[in-house]
Amino acid sequence: MSGAALRLRPLGIDTQKEFVVYMRRDCHICRAEGFEAQTRVEVALRKRRIVATVNVIDSELLAPGEASLSASGWPALEAAPGDAVTVSHAPTLDSLSAVRSKIHGHRLDAGALNDIVGDIAKGRYSDLHIAAFLSACAGGRMDLRETIDLTRAMVGAGDRIDWGGWPIADKHCVGGLPGNRTTPIVVAIAASAGLIMPKTSSRAITSAAGTADMMETLTSVDLALPAMRRVVEREGGCFVWGGALTLSPADDVMIRVERPLGLDSDAQLVASVLSKKIAAGATHAVIDIPVGPNAKVRSDKAARSLQSLFEQVAAAHGLQLRVVRTEGVQPVGRGIGPALEAHDVLSVLKRTQDAPSDLRTRSLALAGELLEFCGHSLPGAGAAEALRKLDSGAAWSKFQAICAAQGGLREPDVAPLREPVLADRAGYVSGMDNRRLARVAKLAGAPGAAAAGLELHVRLGDRVEKGTPLFTLHAEAPGELAYAKAYLLSHPVMLLAEQEAP
Amino acid sequence: MSGAALRLRPLGIDTQKEFVVYMRRDCHICRAEGFEAQTRVEVALRKRRIVATVNVIDSELLAPGEASLSASGWPALEAAPGDAVTVSHAPTLDSLSAVRSKIHGHRLDAGALNDIVGDIAKGRYSDLHIAAFLSACAGGRMDLRETIDLTRAMVGAGDRIDWGGWPIADKHCVGGLPGNRTTPIVVAIAASAGLIMPKTSSRAITSAAGTADMMETLTSVDLALPAMRRVVEREGGCFVWGGALTLSPADDVMIRVERPLGLDSDAQLVASVLSKKIAAGATHAVIDIPVGPNAKVRSDKAARSLQSLFEQVAAAHGLQLRVVRTEGVQPVGRGIGPALEAHDVLSVLKRTQDAPSDLRTRSLALAGELLEFCGHSLPGAGAAEALRKLDSGAAWSKFQAICAAQGGLREPDVAPLREPVLADRAGYVSGMDNRRLARVAKLAGAPGAAAAGLELHVRLGDRVEKGTPLFTLHAEAPGELAYAKAYLLSHPVMLLAEQEAP
Repeated sequence: MSGAALRLRPLGIDTQKEFVVYMRRDCHICRAEGFEAQTRVEVALRKRRIVATVNVIDSELLAPGEASLSASGWPALEAAPGDAVTVSHAPTLDSLSAVRSKIHGHRLDAGALNDIVGDIAKGRYSDLHIAAFLSACAGGRMDLRETIDLTRAMVGAGDRIDWGGWPIADKHCVGGLPGNRTTPIVVAIAASAGLIMPKTSSRAITSAAGTADMMETLTSVDLALPAMRRVVEREGGCFVWGGALTLSPADDVMIRVERPLGLDSDAQLVASVLSKKIAAGATHAVIDIPVGPNAKVRSDKAARSLQSLFEQVAAAHGLQLRVVRTEGVQPVGRGIGPALEAHDVLSVLKRTQDAPSDLRTRSLALAGELLEFCGHSLPGAGAAEALRKLDSGAAWSKFQAICAAQGGLREPDVAPLREPVLADRAGYVSGMDNRRLARVAKLAGAPGAAAAGLELHVRLGDRVEKGTPLFTLHAEAPGELAYAKAYLLSHPVMLLAEQEAP
Repeated sequence: MSGAALRLRPLGIDTQKEFVVYMRRDCHICRAEGFEAQTRVEVALRKRRIVATVNVIDSELLAPGEASLSASGWPALEAAPGDAVTVSHAPTLDSLSAVRSKIHGHRLDAGALNDIVGDIAKGRYSDLHIAAFLSACAGGRMDLRETIDLTRAMVGAGDRIDWGGWPIADKHCVGGLPGNRTTPIVVAIAASAGLIMPKTSSRAITSAAGTADMMETLTSVDLALPAMRRVVEREGGCFVWGGALTLSPADDVMIRVERPLGLDSDAQLVASVLSKKIAAGATHAVIDIPVGPNAKVRSDKAARSLQSLFEQVAAAHGLQLRVVRTEGVQPVGRGIGPALEAHDVLSVLKRTQDAPSDLRTRSLALAGELLEFCGHSLPGAGAAEALRKLDSGAAWSKFQAICAAQGGLREPDVAPLREPVLADRAGYVSGMDNRRLARVAKLAGAPGAAAAGLELHVRLGDRVEKGTPLFTLHAEAPGELAYAKAYLLSHPVMLLAEQEAP
């Protein structure tokens, strides 16, 4: 079909990743494509093209001959207001027949997985198609070979960094405990010991802060690859937001769809994590699997099975991998929110009196494992070496040097509005709802308001009296503080028991 | 969480069924819910509430304190511009755990299917959730019991009409041949013979015309239940658009998602068709299954298996059902498009010389089956009785009477622009691409422009010379005529062979 040329007018609508094209109901292409859910068209501008879902405009938002794009469509097409795009029907998605074949219970070979993942990375699948693919692969329906091929396809769909050295260290924590910000400390220890650890991190998707959000309160994290390379060459480590790089781009798309479905598939998780690590050029990776009733992995059995899949897929890709299982029952450190978590990280690195010991202990364990594993320390000697690097101030110096190389270290903000939340009776802290705690921090403004969130004053098992502060809300705006408080009225986040736990 | 009150401003954006709420990025609820794909919130107005996906506005489309809804959200909330809606986080979708369980390979019991279908009917599932459910059920993963329970759940999620009589006749054609408009003729014959046949039909989703679109060129089809009841009580039959009634509402939602996925599941098809029939109060239904390389069902084996499932599920619900397999190789009649198909129907009913014989024959076969089956004619005598009703003019009188009761019979429009498409060489018509023919009709403006579409002048096997008109394009606007012609330049819709088929 010959496409229709339409002039772009900005409307400022963000559909959160999925491409949408807005067209008047009376334009030809709209009439021709019909009006079913998820009508897909190809939008082309110069040499770029995206596949977008049609939303129909029945008002004067658009004049005849005009169209618009959702927020993510503009950079994808490198479009500016007034550009004339061509709209035509979407190319046939041949890879969908492989998805249907998987739905019908057949195995997917490497070629089919390449096609599917390639189409996803290019934005050709709607969320609805991705949901179908993820559902067909979940529930243990991906075997080891498919998981290995999926991982390879995900690496192949994006860029892959070559650091020209060996070993290249990396770490990842599976399944979020709020405040579990070991990454900056592990990088500082590892780099101070001479390891190369070019760390890329993500921003929060559903949590109150991602490592990139947290590090952004201290330094610039939005580095392109050449700048990242310069920092790593000089200091051995970095703290970079991975979103600006094109490492396993299909992963970002799939994660956004997987989450609202609540699908927890080991195959998808392993392919997601390892494809990012391999694309980032890692040769050695430590994987932190918190296990606990509040964590993503809830039993030792589940952890063993996940660990085994991690090890086999990593081995197939020549990636050295170690799994460390940690306790996952309550938030780590005191802060939940970018700046508050940064304070915790700084206090561990600076070895202040009140540094949260759980964050310190976890970071040392992971760094020790990495040091041994990468051949820096002898077996059994990694923990002591990590402790030396931290206690000598070498890690803190390295952290400052990396931040300086990234554009300078700054002090994280402190929220202007703070309000303690008190125990309404005496008792022992017997439970914390990690998910609700994260939600309270988000209602208070995190991660958009970097200083917002909450600061915990108690740990599980602590004895409190009536009126003891349980935590303090931090907010930048009165409305957000009020919003967080309103939520707390109907949603308790901590349990107080009358008796101490046995 | 206490909701935020936002004042509604119309934007005129139609997302094709799925509810979307537009909110400024700086409003609290937006910040609190985060920005992942398919963030879902509950929007409430007075006693009504919908679950909607959030799209974020970064422009002056909305002022602070304002929100907007996609087109379908306004009637669902009975909202008017300026109404203040409350937005809060979406209620937990407990039924999603049943979807996940199905993804993991477990059976769904009646209760779980009720919960899922109920949530879908209430608009609580996003397209993405529905895609996951459909994928989990496709590929032969629904057993007979589940298909029966799914059908019951779909009936239960909407209204069910009780006609207070027996038998109540109905018919349905599976899988669209363009122009296969037997329904109005069958209803006219059946009602003229004294059967009760309260027919509800759909509008086009991807085709160039639905039966409701076609009948709307002749009379009013948008009748509410009380008006429909009056027509049926007086005339024994009716031609009503089902969309205004709430019969198996989850079906409409699922069909819209199923289509872009290209999922063809017998279980879903049977539950879809039968839930509509049962909800409409039918006790006897004839199902037309066209079989052919261009039809939905492509082999006799597939037809047998589908027939068996239809029969078993119908039996479980106490619905009498007969399947008629018909040939499905080329369009039926001459017209493709609402008014053009109406002309074909009228010419069969009026017994004009040029009435398309295939449409007449098919209609007689289905009507004859229905007459026998409902106990009106003795076995083997139905076809002759149907023929008598048609040839005596009784069916035509009944058709006119029903249309009069629905508000009057009018002449369908004739398109002002008509242009023949000629054979570019001599040969035998050896193939027709039904899908492309439908697309040409849509490009010419159907079904929105009711008189648009195309009129076939040849049938498979016909001998044509160079310059023989193959079909005539009908359009209401020059742009649409040009658009259809441009498509034809690169997309042949008929094959011409040098030799006659053996």
